[in-house]
Amino acid sequence: MGFQEREVISVLQQIFATADSRLKVGIGDDAAVVATQSQSIITSDMAVEDVHFKLEWSSPFDIGRKITAANVADILSMGGKCDFLTASVALTGDETLQWIENLARGMKHEADLAGALVVGGDIARGPKIVISMTAVGNSSSPILRSGAKVGDGLYLSSLTGWSAAGFELLTREISINSATAEKALSEFSAPTLDYTIDFSGATAMADVSDSVLVQAEQIADASGVQISIDQKAIVQASEFAELSALADELKVDILQWILAGGEDHALLATGVNLPGIRIGSVIAGSGISGLERKMTPVSWSHF
Amino acid sequence: MGFQEREVISVLQQIFATADSRLKVGIGDDAAVVATQSQSIITSDMAVEDVHFKLEWSSPFDIGRKITAANVADILSMGGKCDFLTASVALTGDETLQWIENLARGMKHEADLAGALVVGGDIARGPKIVISMTAVGNSSSPILRSGAKVGDGLYLSSLTGWSAAGFELLTREISINSATAEKALSEFSAPTLDYTIDFSGATAMADVSDSVLVQAEQIADASGVQISIDQKAIVQASEFAELSALADELKVDILQWILAGGEDHALLATGVNLPGIRIGSVIAGSGISGLERKMTPVSWSHF
Repeated sequence: MGFQEREVISVLQQIFATADSRLKVGIGDDAAVVATQSQSIITSDMAVEDVHFKLEWSSPFDIGRKITAANVADILSMGGKCDFLTASVALTGDETLQWIENLARGMKHEADLAGALVVGGDIARGPKIVISMTAVGNSSSPILRSGAKVGDGLYLSSLTGWSAAGFELLTREISINSATAEKALSEFSAPTLDYTIDFSGATAMADVSDSVLVQAEQIADASGVQISIDQKAIVQASEFAELSALADELKVDILQWILAGGEDHALLATGVNLPGIRIGSVIAGSGISGLERKMTPVSWSHF
Repeated sequence: MGFQEREVISVLQQIFATADSRLKVGIGDDAAVVATQSQSIITSDMAVEDVHFKLEWSSPFDIGRKITAANVADILSMGGKCDFLTASVALTGDETLQWIENLARGMKHEADLAGALVVGGDIARGPKIVISMTAVGNSSSPILRSGAKVGDGLYLSSLTGWSAAGFELLTREISINSATAEKALSEFSAPTLDYTIDFSGATAMADVSDSVLVQAEQIADASGVQISIDQKAIVQASEFAELSALADELKVDILQWILAGGEDHALLATGVNLPGIRIGSVIAGSGISGLERKMTPVSWSHF
């Protein structure tokens, strides 16, 4: 690499510079000093090259966006607002300064959408690129997985399955020239988080990173209820027809994408009269019901 | 690996379980919920296998202690108290559950010493072990690198150089059967942070991870002063004779270890009548002076 760590840090300082009053001391000292609320939410997420992303599939900008979105989504899923992010990155030494800059710009882009500031991090050398982010947010009344109540509906902030569709196109090396395929590829590379949806009235919430089925089961377990999926309701979702056409073209079960695909970073919530897409109900019992056939969630646990 | 991610998480939940009132929601939901002060300090540090640590040199317990100490030291060096830690770990799949447990116990051990709680993290698969931690602490009046004033003394919380001495023993594969050599090896594997030293009166402070010289230069630059190192004062430090005997045995320049070695995670502070070891003075000018010969800090930037 033809540059020094201090050059990289100097570039990062410029990209993440802010006049936001929440930041008291930014990048450059031993740690950042920030203004926090009396109750904070903290979460960390790690992405490894060739496990969570591939350089030939995603631009550095999209990789930066995706890992940032994954961290922010965990704050949103607690009913919180993301304030601060740190990013630690292991680099192989084969990256150009431009590549690193674009990675940082992707993080900054998504952080801006979330209203969050990147306030620090670390750079290390490693055999593969590893990106680890931590998000710190706030919420006066966090929404946990354990609050779902019998009688609640189950809601998605947006239709899932797009990321799985993109993954399918990439792994099967299928090239389809359509806006739908483009959207699937784009959602796989960097999911679009819906920052406007108001799930503040939710009784329970989770980030759908491991698939709707896995996260619904976690809510059911934590809340001591059963979640009944309503497949007929899913079919009514506004984007269903578009995604369904792609699934048909690829001869894939669309419900597998939507319910078991994972990596979407949409929000799954229970409650009464929530916005978003209603895809089921909370009833007495345990586990998941309502599925017309058995579905196996893709393992995104990477372990 | 003969175990599932959920088994690992279950073990980690047990190790990091706490009744501490600062923790509202611990490991198991999308994020942790914690009680924070109005001003928080955030820092992140990453350690990569074969770059920052070697499995044949350090036990998982020591590796866990060291990365935790590195993060905590950055909070202490801001004059803060560490409250919360997250740990994200990429594992190769060759680790036993016992190994992972011992890594976590090392983190817990050091976190306990610091009065901090491990509240979350992530587990991923990777080609090498990568550990990324984030520390969140608090301080009502953070001590920056920029506050050093002409007339201040320069102080170390404890004698540095032990980690470099241990590194020398390991890389040169020299086996010496003495308490001094043992201490050097032990400090290399997991530095002993001095949690009792009171540097609250410091005008500027930094964590000595990149060596005394590098960090003193950063303080000088940030404060617009010159830092004059007093080599004669260093010789008076209580542990100097012990470390010096080892340096002589290895035919190494002890000042290179102490001033340019790095990876010690001691605190370097400026101020008047501070505790610790006085090793120099803040004078008018810029940069570093007082060195009787040129010394090249070992690059610990790993980049």
